[in-house]
Amino acid sequence: MTYTRGIMEPIKVGLLGFGTVGSGTFNVLHRNQEEISRRAGRGIKITQIAVRNPVKARQVLIDLPDTVELTSDFTAVVDNPSLEIIAEMIGGTDIARELVLRAIYSGKHIVTANKALLAIHGTEIFEAARSKGVIVAFEAAVAGGIPIIKVLRESLTANRIQYIAGIINGTTNFILSEMCERGLDFATALADAQRLGYAEADPAFDIEGIDAAHKATIMAAIAFGVPVQFERAYVEGITQLHAIDIRYAEELGYRIKLLGIVRRTTRGIELRVHPTLIPVKRLIANVEGAMNAVLVYGDAVGATLYYGQGAGAEPTASAVIADLVDITRLCMVNPSNRVPHLAFQPDRLESTPILPIDEVTSSYYLRLRVANQIGVLSDITRILATLGVSIDTLLQKKSEFFDEGRVSETIIILITRETLEKNINLVISRIEALSTVRSSVTRLRMEALN
Amino acid sequence: MTYTRGIMEPIKVGLLGFGTVGSGTFNVLHRNQEEISRRAGRGIKITQIAVRNPVKARQVLIDLPDTVELTSDFTAVVDNPSLEIIAEMIGGTDIARELVLRAIYSGKHIVTANKALLAIHGTEIFEAARSKGVIVAFEAAVAGGIPIIKVLRESLTANRIQYIAGIINGTTNFILSEMCERGLDFATALADAQRLGYAEADPAFDIEGIDAAHKATIMAAIAFGVPVQFERAYVEGITQLHAIDIRYAEELGYRIKLLGIVRRTTRGIELRVHPTLIPVKRLIANVEGAMNAVLVYGDAVGATLYYGQGAGAEPTASAVIADLVDITRLCMVNPSNRVPHLAFQPDRLESTPILPIDEVTSSYYLRLRVANQIGVLSDITRILATLGVSIDTLLQKKSEFFDEGRVSETIIILITRETLEKNINLVISRIEALSTVRSSVTRLRMEALN
Repeated sequence: MTYTRGIMEPIKVGLLGFGTVGSGTFNVLHRNQEEISRRAGRGIKITQIAVRNPVKARQVLIDLPDTVELTSDFTAVVDNPSLEIIAEMIGGTDIARELVLRAIYSGKHIVTANKALLAIHGTEIFEAARSKGVIVAFEAAVAGGIPIIKVLRESLTANRIQYIAGIINGTTNFILSEMCERGLDFATALADAQRLGYAEADPAFDIEGIDAAHKATIMAAIAFGVPVQFERAYVEGITQLHAIDIRYAEELGYRIKLLGIVRRTTRGIELRVHPTLIPVKRLIANVEGAMNAVLVYGDAVGATLYYGQGAGAEPTASAVIADLVDITRLCMVNPSNRVPHLAFQPDRLESTPILPIDEVTSSYYLRLRVANQIGVLSDITRILATLGVSIDTLLQKKSEFFDEGRVSETIIILITRETLEKNINLVISRIEALSTVRSSVTRLRMEALN
Repeated sequence: MTYTRGIMEPIKVGLLGFGTVGSGTFNVLHRNQEEISRRAGRGIKITQIAVRNPVKARQVLIDLPDTVELTSDFTAVVDNPSLEIIAEMIGGTDIARELVLRAIYSGKHIVTANKALLAIHGTEIFEAARSKGVIVAFEAAVAGGIPIIKVLRESLTANRIQYIAGIINGTTNFILSEMCERGLDFATALADAQRLGYAEADPAFDIEGIDAAHKATIMAAIAFGVPVQFERAYVEGITQLHAIDIRYAEELGYRIKLLGIVRRTTRGIELRVHPTLIPVKRLIANVEGAMNAVLVYGDAVGATLYYGQGAGAEPTASAVIADLVDITRLCMVNPSNRVPHLAFQPDRLESTPILPIDEVTSSYYLRLRVANQIGVLSDITRILATLGVSIDTLLQKKSEFFDEGRVSETIIILITRETLEKNINLVISRIEALSTVRSSVTRLRMEALN
């Protein structure tokens, strides 16, 4: 077992294609290079990029370092002996297949986001990779930034997977959300999606369910241990869906989603994509807009759900780079080092302090009981203003502890904007010192989780 | 790099402790052994178990094969040279620490679900493992069946993690759900949780937030590359929470959850556990009962959410076995083989058929327009009954296409129980042949996603 320590040259990566995902990958790798090398144990560097028009690309990407070579010769990148990994970002199934196979036969590891390629030519590509002892990594091919491939291949390995149901196409989920929330018909919602950049000019692959079926095909193979077989998938898109049925379904307590479903039955495997009613109370029914989510049901683990952005430059780059780190870690494998225990290399731990709670920033919910007198509220708001704490919401309620014989009381509930915990503690102690305040202040923290 | 092919002896595992998680692990490993060995490339066998009273354990567990040795001598298991992996399931921080360190120094890999042990003694244990070149795997230590450790260590490696917010203690989430849904006070909800088995007789570790803080401590280390430092965590439980504040928060559009929060700021790391208001519209606010969920925000991937069962015999076993498979795969590592491309070993793919859509089972939503005549509904229901299709819901609505000059029409919406797709197609063709039916039948599939 090889086991290399000490400072190493960065692992060199060649990109095929430099569109949304390619440039996103370059940017994230560049921005987070220090953190990524702490995790991987070695730097990861894109040194060569194949793109149709290098001159134009260089003009558009003025930040691209001169050390990165741009070329229009795709096979030159595939054949470049200094590269250890080829990241295929061109899409499609013909040229991509040729280039990926050529890279494999020249002994390079492959990272790809190309679901169509794998759903259709996966058997041939994986067999080639196996014969050459290289890795083909494809986390980005299904559900973008959601790490569903690793979860299925490495985390749920104890389980007989019963079924997977996924919202795995953001375009159609955006359209369905618009139809549901705004009562639009399909054509109007599609036009909106195109205008906002959620649907392509030619949206057929998305709205006909083909993209989702490519992804479901890959998940079925991984979940059940069968070869990829896209030709057996049942595919039905959302083009025939009526707004009225979305409304009726809602009345009955259901939401309609385009689901990719794979299920194990005693008679065989179900592999299908179609619009589907789901009880509104299910978490996955509430996944709106262009977001993706995958529900996996295993016999031991029960139901688990994975939610996140299924497309876009940086979410997809997150998945591509996870694969680059995986390969990098494996290339210097020793059992305790493949993945460091704390994710970062042990000699690269930092001494960043853990903040005491006083130094934590939060919004706060405050509840107190005050005498029903003129000036009370102004006393309280003055305390907040003096300490620089902004009020987001203020609610007055009649006290439940109202006593007929006493001066009447009011309950005040305040929600503050973000402030330091030590500030809010000062606010509270000053409020509690007011003679008009009849209770201690109940304080809870709030997180917007934006 | 070693690379072993062909049939191998199963990898041998010793268990320390045989309570809920230990017996769950044994059962799942036994039940799914064929599928697990297809994934791992090698069998995984528990051959020795240390338990306080082996005679009693053997009486209780009548299914335990004779080939599994039960002993009350814990160090004998730790020292047993035939074992490659020790799974520590006894809990606590004193004896567990001694046994784990002793196993590491005898060169064995460790799998543990013990969050307290790692949150407090993690630095010492990981350093020992590193010096001996063995793995300490701990997927089960945080959020049970949710694979959050692997996600943070291996999937989100491209990201600067901004924050993690997790519902990582099922007991307190169950209590809060009861307080919220049924208006109970804390003491009553706790008593309910104890009666139903969601809270232990001594619930302090859960309700005081300590268990959640152990887990948050481990996540902070992995997310930010800092050592585990439980002593710096801010911990506040739910014992002081009033039902009235849950109600007010709801009125304002917030739900209160006990969150474990770790956040990167320019001044340091926040590491805290406390009751927290969250906007009700957030997915994580709708995680109810004993379920867990972890929201991770990375700079590239954005918001991702991971949801599932955080405790229980089989969900936790799912995580323990994932670690056993990881170690097994790594012990016979070659780059293309560590994780097989399609999760299963390439020579173990099955030829299970993908079902044609006709053979798929589903519930269905049917919508049609009928003449407003006596006997129409009975004609339709007879067709369903003849073909063995049960009706779950039937809704009649006045037609929107009602025309004053014509015989009035009714819209019928039917939701069926599960049936084969070919049955429903037959149902539809027979319904459409009725002279009283004025439209084609709109058919949608429904998934309960239980």
